[in-house]
Amino acid sequence: MKFMPYEKSLEILAKNTIKWDRIEKVTITNALNRYLAIDIIAKDNYPSHPTSAMDGYAIKHSEIENGSFTILGDVPAGALKDVELGKFECIKTFTGSLMSKNSDTLVPVENVEVFDNTIKIIKEVPKGFAVREIGESYKKGEILIKKGTKLSYSEIALLAELGEIFVSVYIKPKVAILATGSEIKDIGEPLENEAQIRSSNHVALKAMMELMGCEPMILPIVKDEPNLVENAILQGLRSCDILLTTGGVSMGDYDFVKTALSKNCNVIINGAAIKPGRHIKISKIDEKYIFSLPGFPYSAMVMCILYVRVLINSFFSINDNYEVNAVMDSDFTKKSKFLEFSACTLYADKKGILKVSLKGKKDGSSAIVNNLNQNAALLITPLESTGHKKGDVVKVLKMV
Amino acid sequence: MKFMPYEKSLEILAKNTIKWDRIEKVTITNALNRYLAIDIIAKDNYPSHPTSAMDGYAIKHSEIENGSFTILGDVPAGALKDVELGKFECIKTFTGSLMSKNSDTLVPVENVEVFDNTIKIIKEVPKGFAVREIGESYKKGEILIKKGTKLSYSEIALLAELGEIFVSVYIKPKVAILATGSEIKDIGEPLENEAQIRSSNHVALKAMMELMGCEPMILPIVKDEPNLVENAILQGLRSCDILLTTGGVSMGDYDFVKTALSKNCNVIINGAAIKPGRHIKISKIDEKYIFSLPGFPYSAMVMCILYVRVLINSFFSINDNYEVNAVMDSDFTKKSKFLEFSACTLYADKKGILKVSLKGKKDGSSAIVNNLNQNAALLITPLESTGHKKGDVVKVLKMV
Repeated sequence: MKFMPYEKSLEILAKNTIKWDRIEKVTITNALNRYLAIDIIAKDNYPSHPTSAMDGYAIKHSEIENGSFTILGDVPAGALKDVELGKFECIKTFTGSLMSKNSDTLVPVENVEVFDNTIKIIKEVPKGFAVREIGESYKKGEILIKKGTKLSYSEIALLAELGEIFVSVYIKPKVAILATGSEIKDIGEPLENEAQIRSSNHVALKAMMELMGCEPMILPIVKDEPNLVENAILQGLRSCDILLTTGGVSMGDYDFVKTALSKNCNVIINGAAIKPGRHIKISKIDEKYIFSLPGFPYSAMVMCILYVRVLINSFFSINDNYEVNAVMDSDFTKKSKFLEFSACTLYADKKGILKVSLKGKKDGSSAIVNNLNQNAALLITPLESTGHKKGDVVKVLKMV
Repeated sequence: MKFMPYEKSLEILAKNTIKWDRIEKVTITNALNRYLAIDIIAKDNYPSHPTSAMDGYAIKHSEIENGSFTILGDVPAGALKDVELGKFECIKTFTGSLMSKNSDTLVPVENVEVFDNTIKIIKEVPKGFAVREIGESYKKGEILIKKGTKLSYSEIALLAELGEIFVSVYIKPKVAILATGSEIKDIGEPLENEAQIRSSNHVALKAMMELMGCEPMILPIVKDEPNLVENAILQGLRSCDILLTTGGVSMGDYDFVKTALSKNCNVIINGAAIKPGRHIKISKIDEKYIFSLPGFPYSAMVMCILYVRVLINSFFSINDNYEVNAVMDSDFTKKSKFLEFSACTLYADKKGILKVSLKGKKDGSSAIVNNLNQNAALLITPLESTGHKKGDVVKVLKMV
């Protein structure tokens, strides 16, 4: 069997990617970790008026050498007082209050002594001190948050500041997860013999889909029987936008997912020269996708990053390719003739150099789930490379 | 007013930190992003028997030079067949199947030609090829996931593999958020004049608390009136473990949070020599905490990282201090005489060096919410330092 290069398979996926123009409005308090579907643009300058950044006394700086000022009153935050300062006059002004007419500088309370209705400045400040100028935070027309941004705490704060109640985000794609295999038992099901194993890739993929901003659902596990597999795929597709299957796609006699796909779908990608996961299959029916991932959970999780995330990123207008450059802290020898993705740890050393460590990552098959623990990343070793030497600059793919 | 060093304030907080020995069991499919309250230890070797990692034919490697083997039958994954290989015999074995007695090597299907009930090996493999040895993934007694780990997709996969249905995690602390200030209006409330502003720190803190694994609730905003503020604090405390207030703690005449705290609580920290947030106050009543954060949302968010996260990390047995070393990509001049935390961007350059950029971060007051957008981090400039030069190795604190 001949496998196409990874890059070629990504090109095919890109050509077959639909535009995810499905947008919903959610309240900003429910928008955490959602992906913004429009640019957020400042409608006004902020602040729209000069504003005090501390508690103190507003003065006209050209008069500061006078040293003494008559207190006209105060402007609590939120109060709108149309006060204009006369000669050698000041007004008590609090954090967040508007600066009064004719004032340009705030002298903090710590810098003055107060005698009845007069202040004496004991420590001068430069012109404009502690005043938020018009547009300090942002100016009218500025793009504040770009389409495709994952909304975190500060973007939500900004939306609140802008007066937004709702925000337009991409609708979460529904992703159904179908684990196949006569040997796998579901959570809580007893193992009947030593050859059976517990399904783990369905729960792993569910968590990954949540972390990627999708709405996952776990379908009942299906045994290796042609009709059962085919029915489960067709039935699953009715309730989702993307179906992830695991198992049943390699070279074995019990790989019925493969058969069901070729019968019912347009298989757009049929294997790639990568390790793990060379038997990956991606199929399309109308606007729906089926990613047929390997049965080994480590492989399935890596494949989910290498392909499923690429599609979802495109849906959500995400530009990030999650690749960083880093420096090997040990040698690494490639095992296959393929493009390899190997579990590794990224860390910054004392000098601020981003290092790749393979320490604690077990050598063995693609079945070792725990190699992805503790926020692992994927060391990329190209098709033409035989490995890396300590000190080499390499590319690393971040997981979710 | 004299401010204590940040380190000193952290020591006081540590001395006053209760042990958060509150644990609940959740199903593993609901455990994403929860903090593990116990160590997870392997009860058995995994796999417990030699297992095939590919589809192929199990043989005894010492016989490989014979080149031809009689097929005894097959072992589908999940099947338990008590087959023992005789001389020059093989058995078809699928990914995940147990290796049969007397076999030690798997010859992949791609490496053989099949004639009726005989295979001919066309490409040899080394001894032990494609066999998962006993304990390849983990050995009995191995600590697999440490207490305090934030459970992500692969830890959940591992828990499933281990046969766990439930997992012990720390109960989420309930965090109530109380924004104070007569000038602030809630989401959706119209502004009555140009001096009023929209509350943003309550939604920001809610999102931060969610990201930190807590259960937040937003309390109604309270105006700057002594009785209202005091009642809101006491009432809020009834429903939470941690109360975050914003505003009302600086040097102004309307800072009633300060007054309410000194009347009712044990104020354990009263200011620190840091920018932003020098007026931070932390109080304790029995096993509950009140963090009184500044009114400016940028400052409040930074303070949440500098203090609230420290307490929560301790509750959740998290060892990470979220500090990394990185290299300045431009000069930076400190503004205050305090320990400063300034919004910055962390990125890895082409050579794999972690760089600190201040590009796009606006210069101005602590009111600029948008400086924390796009996954900002905090550049640390020590008390005794005046700033950093391009190329300096500095410490950077990651946000949530």
